[in-house]
Amino acid sequence: MISQFLTVQLRESSSQVNVFLNSIIRASSKPKVLYEASRHLIDAGGKRARPFLTLKSCELVGGRIEDALPMATAIELLHTFTLIHDDIMDEDTKRRGKPSVHAKWGVPMAITAGDLLFAKVYESALNFVDSRRLQPKKILQALDLITKATITICEGQAYDMIFEKQELISEDEYFEMIGKKTASLLKTAAQVGAIVGSGTELQVKRVGDFSYYSGLAFQIVDDVLCLTADESELGKPVGSDIREGKKTLIILHALNNAQKDLRKQILSTLGNASVSPKEIMSVIEAIKNIGSIDYATAKAIQLGEKAKKHLSNFPDSTAKRALLEFNDYLVNRKH
Amino acid sequence: MISQFLTVQLRESSSQVNVFLNSIIRASSKPKVLYEASRHLIDAGGKRARPFLTLKSCELVGGRIEDALPMATAIELLHTFTLIHDDIMDEDTKRRGKPSVHAKWGVPMAITAGDLLFAKVYESALNFVDSRRLQPKKILQALDLITKATITICEGQAYDMIFEKQELISEDEYFEMIGKKTASLLKTAAQVGAIVGSGTELQVKRVGDFSYYSGLAFQIVDDVLCLTADESELGKPVGSDIREGKKTLIILHALNNAQKDLRKQILSTLGNASVSPKEIMSVIEAIKNIGSIDYATAKAIQLGEKAKKHLSNFPDSTAKRALLEFNDYLVNRKH
Repeated sequence: MISQFLTVQLRESSSQVNVFLNSIIRASSKPKVLYEASRHLIDAGGKRARPFLTLKSCELVGGRIEDALPMATAIELLHTFTLIHDDIMDEDTKRRGKPSVHAKWGVPMAITAGDLLFAKVYESALNFVDSRRLQPKKILQALDLITKATITICEGQAYDMIFEKQELISEDEYFEMIGKKTASLLKTAAQVGAIVGSGTELQVKRVGDFSYYSGLAFQIVDDVLCLTADESELGKPVGSDIREGKKTLIILHALNNAQKDLRKQILSTLGNASVSPKEIMSVIEAIKNIGSIDYATAKAIQLGEKAKKHLSNFPDSTAKRALLEFNDYLVNRKH
Repeated sequence: MISQFLTVQLRESSSQVNVFLNSIIRASSKPKVLYEASRHLIDAGGKRARPFLTLKSCELVGGRIEDALPMATAIELLHTFTLIHDDIMDEDTKRRGKPSVHAKWGVPMAITAGDLLFAKVYESALNFVDSRRLQPKKILQALDLITKATITICEGQAYDMIFEKQELISEDEYFEMIGKKTASLLKTAAQVGAIVGSGTELQVKRVGDFSYYSGLAFQIVDDVLCLTADESELGKPVGSDIREGKKTLIILHALNNAQKDLRKQILSTLGNASVSPKEIMSVIEAIKNIGSIDYATAKAIQLGEKAKKHLSNFPDSTAKRALLEFNDYLVNRKH
């Protein structure tokens, strides 16, 4: 399902980013426990999807990968910081098949580890750029976008929590929430790459729009997989979204389309920590049967297609192929 | 105890900073609950000590207050973000006489509110500076110091937590911890002010050193007041440091100088959440009697004097007087 070409592209990009990540979060730094906690999720793997968008967007507009690496690393650090804090808030004890940071080191150290990574975002963007090659104005512009994305992510995270306690959520509200919580960072990842690659304003906008819609599709697919993939592939329990009461597109569709009894069953399961895995599986089965998963999957495909249109004005290149195939992969992946 | 001159200086500076704070964290922003939680401690008051250092350091080197205000605001936002997260970690339910953010909105919203303020640090520094007056290089230099200070604060916070579980801490370790956790931000506050005020490298160093030692004294006095002030003045319960097992200079001295029985009593009280207010008061009384509070107070006075020497090369000015009097106030204050 994932081409040889994309596999090589992703592997190359993630190994370049890993070198930077390792030099920014050094295992030898003190206090040891803080740096171990901060490195934990980085070492646990991950697709490095966001830095890939940064690097390929830089390449797409004719920039040099070297100029984008510190920003790509900053974006991955930002993403990792949000994961650590999200896991505390959602009380998720597993991530990437390993214990989450707070499950291993406790909430106080996990909060601090997240804060440290957040500061390291700016350290990466400020200290590792080659200031002989990159104008201070461009660095400031990139930092401004990264800062705005973080504010947007916090707002999205707050909406996510608010929606958990609210029975009725519209699709518009849902898309605003995932737009803020997820798609905004993918958008920024790409824009920052195009900026440091000296892209035009229009090019920056186009890679941003591409990644934004790709990011919406990505989040919907994530929500689908949370209900349909194996625990071993997910790296966390199946159906955790339901146990946490998340208002995903699937749940919105199900609540709008279920018969009275099923609707009642879904509502009593949502956000109910004491519900058994068996009950969760039975609700997932019922949700499947009324077509909610197919509905969400179709939406994701549609958004993925919408994303690709924003790249149509760029001439063919390796970077363009990589971005288009990556979008397809985000939409079609099975884990 | 606080002069009319300093009172006016502080009032003027804090009202200027408050205008900026209000325009950066707007009560009308959405989601409402997130912005309310983020504003809570800002609205609850506070001395605005750190932005005062920024503004006066800018003035001291001949700069314009207007150029330093966005950075001063950024520093106060950074401080407020650390308070919100610290209160979660320390399980402190009161701050500035009000419920702490997590006590009022729960841990998940408080984590997000802190993260939002952290991002707003950079928004303030990036978006509110007058880029016609301030070179991008200077902005980057200030951002770099703010970022390094945050990393240092996280390390200090981690040491603080590690030390809670460690019986033996040396004075050197204690000073490293409060240097990182508290004094580094005061140092950075002053340095950033001198940078945007176009101070020389030496001037930036001197205001930084002044504020660093002032910051060490400030933390020691804070620890003294936690045991000796009234709850109404403190805005939190008396002796909370003992209940949380904090290794303050007072506690280090007491553990080193107490007879066997008292030492045992102190150790059994430290970090013991179930200890009664009466027992806390009896331990404080015993600690007073062996001279630990006098010892810490003398150290604070000594550090305050050391701080002032770093300003001796600046010619007399209103800003210099304000900084020197402020240092005296931090050392001699009774709440």
